[in-house]
Amino acid sequence: MPSFEPRNPDYRAVATAVFDRQQAMRSLGISIAWLGPGEVDLAMPYSAGWSQQNRLVHAGIITTGLDTACGIAAFTLMPAGFDVLTVEFKTNLLAPAKGERFAFRAAVVKPGRTLTFCEARAFAQTGGAESLVATMTGTLMAMMPRV
Amino acid sequence: MPSFEPRNPDYRAVATAVFDRQQAMRSLGISIAWLGPGEVDLAMPYSAGWSQQNRLVHAGIITTGLDTACGIAAFTLMPAGFDVLTVEFKTNLLAPAKGERFAFRAAVVKPGRTLTFCEARAFAQTGGAESLVATMTGTLMAMMPRV
Amino acid sequence: MPSFEPRNPDYRAVATAVFDRQQAMRSLGISIAWLGPGEVDLAMPYSAGWSQQNRLVHAGIITTGLDTACGIAAFTLMPAGFDVLTVEFKTNLLAPAKGERFAFRAAVVKPGRTLTFCEARAFAQTGGAESLVATMTGTLMAMMPRV
Amino acid sequence: MPSFEPRNPDYRAVATAVFDRQQAMRSLGISIAWLGPGEVDLAMPYSAGWSQQNRLVHAGIITTGLDTACGIAAFTLMPAGFDVLTVEFKTNLLAPAKGERFAFRAAVVKPGRTLTFCEARAFAQTGGAESLVATMTGTLMAMMPRV
Repeated sequence: MPSFEPRNPDYRAVATAVFDRQQAMRSLGISIAWLGPGEVDLAMPYSAGWSQQNRLVHAGIITTGLDTACGIAAFTLMPAGFDVLTVEFKTNLLAPAKGERFAFRAAVVKPGRTLTFCEARAFAQTGGAESLVATMTGTLMAMMPRV
Repeated sequence: MPSFEPRNPDYRAVATAVFDRQQAMRSLGISIAWLGPGEVDLAMPYSAGWSQQNRLVHAGIITTGLDTACGIAAFTLMPAGFDVLTVEFKTNLLAPAKGERFAFRAAVVKPGRTLTFCEARAFAQTGGAESLVATMTGTLMAMMPRV
Repeated sequence: MPSFEPRNPDYRAVATAVFDRQQAMRSLGISIAWLGPGEVDLAMPYSAGWSQQNRLVHAGIITTGLDTACGIAAFTLMPAGFDVLTVEFKTNLLAPAKGERFAFRAAVVKPGRTLTFCEARAFAQTGGAESLVATMTGTLMAMMPRV
Repeated sequence: MPSFEPRNPDYRAVATAVFDRQQAMRSLGISIAWLGPGEVDLAMPYSAGWSQQNRLVHAGIITTGLDTACGIAAFTLMPAGFDVLTVEFKTNLLAPAKGERFAFRAAVVKPGRTLTFCEARAFAQTGGAESLVATMTGTLMAMMPRV
């Protein structure tokens, strides 16, 4: 992965603030484990409340973590004053989402003035082991907030 | 849309049972509004608890509704004894997910012995009006449950 | 499908001109069968030269037809002076691409100032019958040509 | 990337044979530059015949290279006697496909008995430099050939 120069020196503070304003993150117990320019690592404990019919975490909830990871990763590279919006993503589910905790790791592949392309992976963690359960590729858009 | 002949005469009961076993649906307040062979319509009230940074419904939560709609639609056409699993989906976000209620409507386009292809749309509803906010295309897999 | 009002009164002439400048269309023998605001229908004869290992049309060639159909459909709704660019697409392959001729039909679902979302379907035609072989959803971007 | 153990000791010969049976590869001048278990690197010279309206390589032709790369990469890990089929892919176009030559590099991320998940990247090469122009994620299926 290339490393990127953030255009907003306060990228860490504003990215954390955007994350904190997402009530869905609080509802799901998702927190930022690590944050850098164009990269983010989120953590989520397992909860039966987010399960599908086999007590695995619902693919949509895995996607929620992946999408936020992509959005925050993209946002760290945007100029001050912009907001971030998801245009599209694809999730591939590779293994049952079964674990004590989950990690959602996103990295910007191609930042752009309007569109940013990110990749992310979701891992299930049990004890000290982790395994890949899903991937996302997504397009994020920088938006001037409406006044 | 073509109309399909369910292979399981009890499709309605088993599809409803699979839906009811998804705790994520209960947590999000999602219910089945309508169900037919290869088609399903889900309903969800707005809740600030599922919002992103602008109090819109999080793209991942919209995806959760769309994915369940696709899964249940595919499941109605599967033979008795099978379970359904999501292989992949893409979500395109077309408009801000702002509304009092949301509808997630999925239809099977191509059922198959192993893989089923579905399309779904998410609509935001306010008063009597509704507008398209997102689309999904997804691949679902029929699985013999492990004994 | 909604019907759209083209912003460029010459949409038909400029969309046809963009299509004609695509040498890939000539190489593949693809032509415009029908064109309207936000909609296009392309036609391609079968040729063994575009086949994969089983003499079916290669999924990438089917995608080439679908992508051009989406691009031209999006382009018909763009203001004069803009160019069109593909941001992303997903293709789902639903049946073997086996036929005497192929049709690629695209329709704009959501036009936008910057991004336009399209859906397209590929059909194989043999004798008088046709069958769905693939679908595409894609995002197209309007670009001011560089001076 | 993990490294994989091929189940077919003749994987190199059969993968090369499947590639050679794809007439589309010959038509486009695509060749195998490198092949290993679960990985493949294809090469294509630029030709104006595959261009879109700005003399860039058409996104569908880039996709054709990426899809074959994914298919062959997946095929190297399949048991003897199986054929490979594309279920779906998403292509994200990141930069203009402008170059003297193109490389399509695919790697299996998750092999499976029925479904295999691959990632691929397309690079444009000019002189000694190369740049990323597109990415693909795709699902491939192992098929017992019909007798």
